[in-house]
Amino acid sequence: MVEAVETMDGWYSLHDFRTIDWTYWKTATPEEKKEAIASFEALITKWDAVEEAKNGSHAMYKIVGQKADLMFMFLRPTMEELNELETELNKSKFAEFLTPAHSYVSVVELSKYRPAKDGIDPETLPETQARLKPILPKWEHVCFYPMDRRRVGDENWYTLEKDVRGKLLYEHSKTGRKYAGKVKQIITGSIGLDDWEWGVTLFAHEPLQFKKIVYEMRFDEVSSRYGEFGEFFVGNLLKKEEIAKFLEV
Amino acid sequence: MVEAVETMDGWYSLHDFRTIDWTYWKTATPEEKKEAIASFEALITKWDAVEEAKNGSHAMYKIVGQKADLMFMFLRPTMEELNELETELNKSKFAEFLTPAHSYVSVVELSKYRPAKDGIDPETLPETQARLKPILPKWEHVCFYPMDRRRVGDENWYTLEKDVRGKLLYEHSKTGRKYAGKVKQIITGSIGLDDWEWGVTLFAHEPLQFKKIVYEMRFDEVSSRYGEFGEFFVGNLLKKEEIAKFLEV
Amino acid sequence: MVEAVETMDGWYSLHDFRTIDWTYWKTATPEEKKEAIASFEALITKWDAVEEAKNGSHAMYKIVGQKADLMFMFLRPTMEELNELETELNKSKFAEFLTPAHSYVSVVELSKYRPAKDGIDPETLPETQARLKPILPKWEHVCFYPMDRRRVGDENWYTLEKDVRGKLLYEHSKTGRKYAGKVKQIITGSIGLDDWEWGVTLFAHEPLQFKKIVYEMRFDEVSSRYGEFGEFFVGNLLKKEEIAKFLEV
Amino acid sequence: MVEAVETMDGWYSLHDFRTIDWTYWKTATPEEKKEAIASFEALITKWDAVEEAKNGSHAMYKIVGQKADLMFMFLRPTMEELNELETELNKSKFAEFLTPAHSYVSVVELSKYRPAKDGIDPETLPETQARLKPILPKWEHVCFYPMDRRRVGDENWYTLEKDVRGKLLYEHSKTGRKYAGKVKQIITGSIGLDDWEWGVTLFAHEPLQFKKIVYEMRFDEVSSRYGEFGEFFVGNLLKKEEIAKFLEV
Amino acid sequence: MVEAVETMDGWYSLHDFRTIDWTYWKTATPEEKKEAIASFEALITKWDAVEEAKNGSHAMYKIVGQKADLMFMFLRPTMEELNELETELNKSKFAEFLTPAHSYVSVVELSKYRPAKDGIDPETLPETQARLKPILPKWEHVCFYPMDRRRVGDENWYTLEKDVRGKLLYEHSKTGRKYAGKVKQIITGSIGLDDWEWGVTLFAHEPLQFKKIVYEMRFDEVSSRYGEFGEFFVGNLLKKEEIAKFLEV
Repeated sequence: MVEAVETMDGWYSLHDFRTIDWTYWKTATPEEKKEAIASFEALITKWDAVEEAKNGSHAMYKIVGQKADLMFMFLRPTMEELNELETELNKSKFAEFLTPAHSYVSVVELSKYRPAKDGIDPETLPETQARLKPILPKWEHVCFYPMDRRRVGDENWYTLEKDVRGKLLYEHSKTGRKYAGKVKQIITGSIGLDDWEWGVTLFAHEPLQFKKIVYEMRFDEVSSRYGEFGEFFVGNLLKKEEIAKFLEV
Repeated sequence: MVEAVETMDGWYSLHDFRTIDWTYWKTATPEEKKEAIASFEALITKWDAVEEAKNGSHAMYKIVGQKADLMFMFLRPTMEELNELETELNKSKFAEFLTPAHSYVSVVELSKYRPAKDGIDPETLPETQARLKPILPKWEHVCFYPMDRRRVGDENWYTLEKDVRGKLLYEHSKTGRKYAGKVKQIITGSIGLDDWEWGVTLFAHEPLQFKKIVYEMRFDEVSSRYGEFGEFFVGNLLKKEEIAKFLEV
Repeated sequence: MVEAVETMDGWYSLHDFRTIDWTYWKTATPEEKKEAIASFEALITKWDAVEEAKNGSHAMYKIVGQKADLMFMFLRPTMEELNELETELNKSKFAEFLTPAHSYVSVVELSKYRPAKDGIDPETLPETQARLKPILPKWEHVCFYPMDRRRVGDENWYTLEKDVRGKLLYEHSKTGRKYAGKVKQIITGSIGLDDWEWGVTLFAHEPLQFKKIVYEMRFDEVSSRYGEFGEFFVGNLLKKEEIAKFLEV
Repeated sequence: MVEAVETMDGWYSLHDFRTIDWTYWKTATPEEKKEAIASFEALITKWDAVEEAKNGSHAMYKIVGQKADLMFMFLRPTMEELNELETELNKSKFAEFLTPAHSYVSVVELSKYRPAKDGIDPETLPETQARLKPILPKWEHVCFYPMDRRRVGDENWYTLEKDVRGKLLYEHSKTGRKYAGKVKQIITGSIGLDDWEWGVTLFAHEPLQFKKIVYEMRFDEVSSRYGEFGEFFVGNLLKKEEIAKFLEV
Repeated sequence: MVEAVETMDGWYSLHDFRTIDWTYWKTATPEEKKEAIASFEALITKWDAVEEAKNGSHAMYKIVGQKADLMFMFLRPTMEELNELETELNKSKFAEFLTPAHSYVSVVELSKYRPAKDGIDPETLPETQARLKPILPKWEHVCFYPMDRRRVGDENWYTLEKDVRGKLLYEHSKTGRKYAGKVKQIITGSIGLDDWEWGVTLFAHEPLQFKKIVYEMRFDEVSSRYGEFGEFFVGNLLKKEEIAKFLEV
């Protein structure tokens, strides 16, 4: 039997994609529009306070193309909080003009492929805790996609020995490190929580970096032979102060 | 020809997922809202009485993400009862504000891979009967997913000899036993009843346990080489007494 | 080149699945409801007369789960009759409250894998004619699913020699015969008529028998190595006399 | 590098499938119904004139099952004409009661697998021209399906040498010739035009012949090892003079 | 580890497909229709000015078949501009009569498989810059499809050595060059940006050339063994001056 690898798990995560019904939005009266925008801004204020108190984090992006108009990414200590937050958004005046487009449930994850150094459990380190409960960067661009490790015939991640997996992932991480300062990556695990095994959320100042890093990584053996990829979403940062203008019709 | 394995089968099962149309719900008058909530609570009272009488069981969860808002799991002695229960829900005032999201039909199943001990048919044991007609735990979290056993080339569950299958499943069950007290698992068979071969319903106090158990099990040969998995749904317990608050807009 | 096998073909078949729009149904006035139910019952009376005259047959079931609410199975001597019958149903008052859920077009089929006995063409036998133009049983439960024979690499039904196919199917039929009296099976061919190669319609007094027979058959080589299966639908008999009650809201 | 085979290409083709919204149709006033039927008949008159002038051809069928109610097949010398014709249909009064169900874009195609005889380019022959710009038969039944040639591992049509492909197709054509007078086949190429590589449109007096020919052909190596098939649609001829009756509610 | 190849990247690209709701369009008053057409023409005027200033480019086509009615292709220096442009289109009066049909996000890409000549970085050459920031041809016909390079077992583009990939692509380019003057091709990369790895946009004076080039290329090893293709869209040029007539009902 092949040995699994322990993971360190942090905040629960919900990616929530919505499409704006512009035609319906235009039929709203000025008062309704004002109420809807205010309800949205009030939610953001609430989310900001949670982030301020380090009890969670969130990010808002405008998705390019027709897959969705908005992407919210929420991090919270419990699944209950994610559920409440989602329900509160659903009940808001603003949500009357949105249609659900996609969602993804996962949890921030770090792998323990490397042995504990000097007997110190890495999970206890402050730097690890900061990575497990991250304040999401407000960088200009986002990219989200889910992925699996392949399990077909000879190309089966789950029948590889632990040290082989560790070595392949270590090689892979070297590709990632070349993009330090250009791409910030948050891995969330979703085995048992959603349809793919992991979610990858990338942040960048320049969207071309998403293409460069994902392209280069595709040649790493861990991706070329063991990676299966789902839908890709890319978007531009949505700032609270630009919401009214964004929704002006 | 390869020998199948007899199964022990208990109550029929229906997983029923619904999405709340919040925008439409808001247009309801206070009287309509009251009537809808009352109709829902009346159904629950009825289901509770069935469970009390040990003629079936049910569970209600709030699904996280946009796949659905609510999941009902119903167990009943006959397919007719499941059908009636579903139709009664469909006709209720509350259902006017719900849209169907997904469903799954199956039957509680235990395998007879292990030989009868001391000539006693295990199906006659009270503990087996309790597992075939289980009262569903009201634990805080649920995870549901359907699965198949692979039938491709050399990776074909259905061409393996019975004792090989039994051994692989026994190894698998040892992984499961590590989660005793943390994860409660109900297997329902759905070959000939729905699109996948089995449904897996997990209950936990902590949703991270869903990820841990499904991740660890994926390295068991029975999963790594023979498991094919469908959509995953996770949710938080919905208590009868919180319904009015949950639906307050 | 590999030799095909001749088939004997009987009545054309249409499986027609519909979902009831309960919310819309409730908005109907008592007169409209009465008219809709009457229109449905009038159609059934017509279909009954066709069956009486042995010019076709039909069956009506309530599907369990959200795939559909109703399944109709119609057998008729010509494709034109199926089309007319379907259009007549579409135009009925009752259909205003139904939405299409699924359909399947095929023709009752028997294979000629076994050689003619004593030079008698089996197609001419009264028992064969009865199987090609069957009066559908009004058993309590139905199961429908479509299937293909695999054509991938070494697992290719269509490159097997005719006698190998015949032998595999003969083994398979022995599994089926164990369920005599418990499961009645009607095979309809749909190569060139619909998306899968065959449709399988099973009737039973006890729905657990669907699971038992399909599970056991999955270990037959013809299924384990050559079977590909589509969506499964299960349902409970809908009797004409219970329609008014079933639709009462 | 493997050599392709030149094709001879004729009229562009559009298969256009529509579903009738019967409930909405019933809400139309007698005047609206009359106008809608007249608009449809006027289009047919126009299409008939084009066919009369040998500038194109068309066929109309009633599809059996819920995939669509109507199938139009249009042949025209240019893609612009197909686009105009489609837009004119979309703008018609009749189209207000139709919803789009499916479409397929292709071009009538003949392959040049066999060498020119006596140095004569077959494309110049009148019989070839008649096959490239065919007047569609008004036979009682139609069958349409799209298909690909497989490109997986050892089963790769596009890495076979030209003469091997030619030989396999020649064997295949012999199966087709057995159905002369029973099935008329029009092959349209759609590589670069739509999602599959070819479209196959079959016409027959008896729909059972669709099943017989497609079943028998599936054992030809070109199908058993290299054929991938899409959705199948079957229908019955719709005559202009029966339209009013067909739409009577 | 296998070496990737650097790419040269130009303008960001958005393919945007829309369907016209003709029935709703007919309900518009003459004033609304006038306003909608004017809003559309005003957008085109704006897009034309951007193209005039060489700050981007665009193309408009009428799609044949039911996949969409209109395809817009937009090229812009930044993802923000694409997002703004899309949102402005969504907010326009014209968009009230459109429904989203499909979209694709990518970036104009050239590969650096061939070594720098005489030490000159090809990216600095004016001809390269013109190809990276192309003014889209206003040719009569368009074809768009997305594609992947295969990663399965022995057929894995991403485990091939760089010079093997270069050689296969060079052979492929020779096929493409045969179509000079007949087909103009723009490759856009979408790894990390959308669901497929590349988008291919072809322009031609004659739509048959799409079929000819894609068919011939399918026999190149790079396609036959390593190409996976998505949906194909074909369309006819939409000129600004014909819009009013195109929308006349």
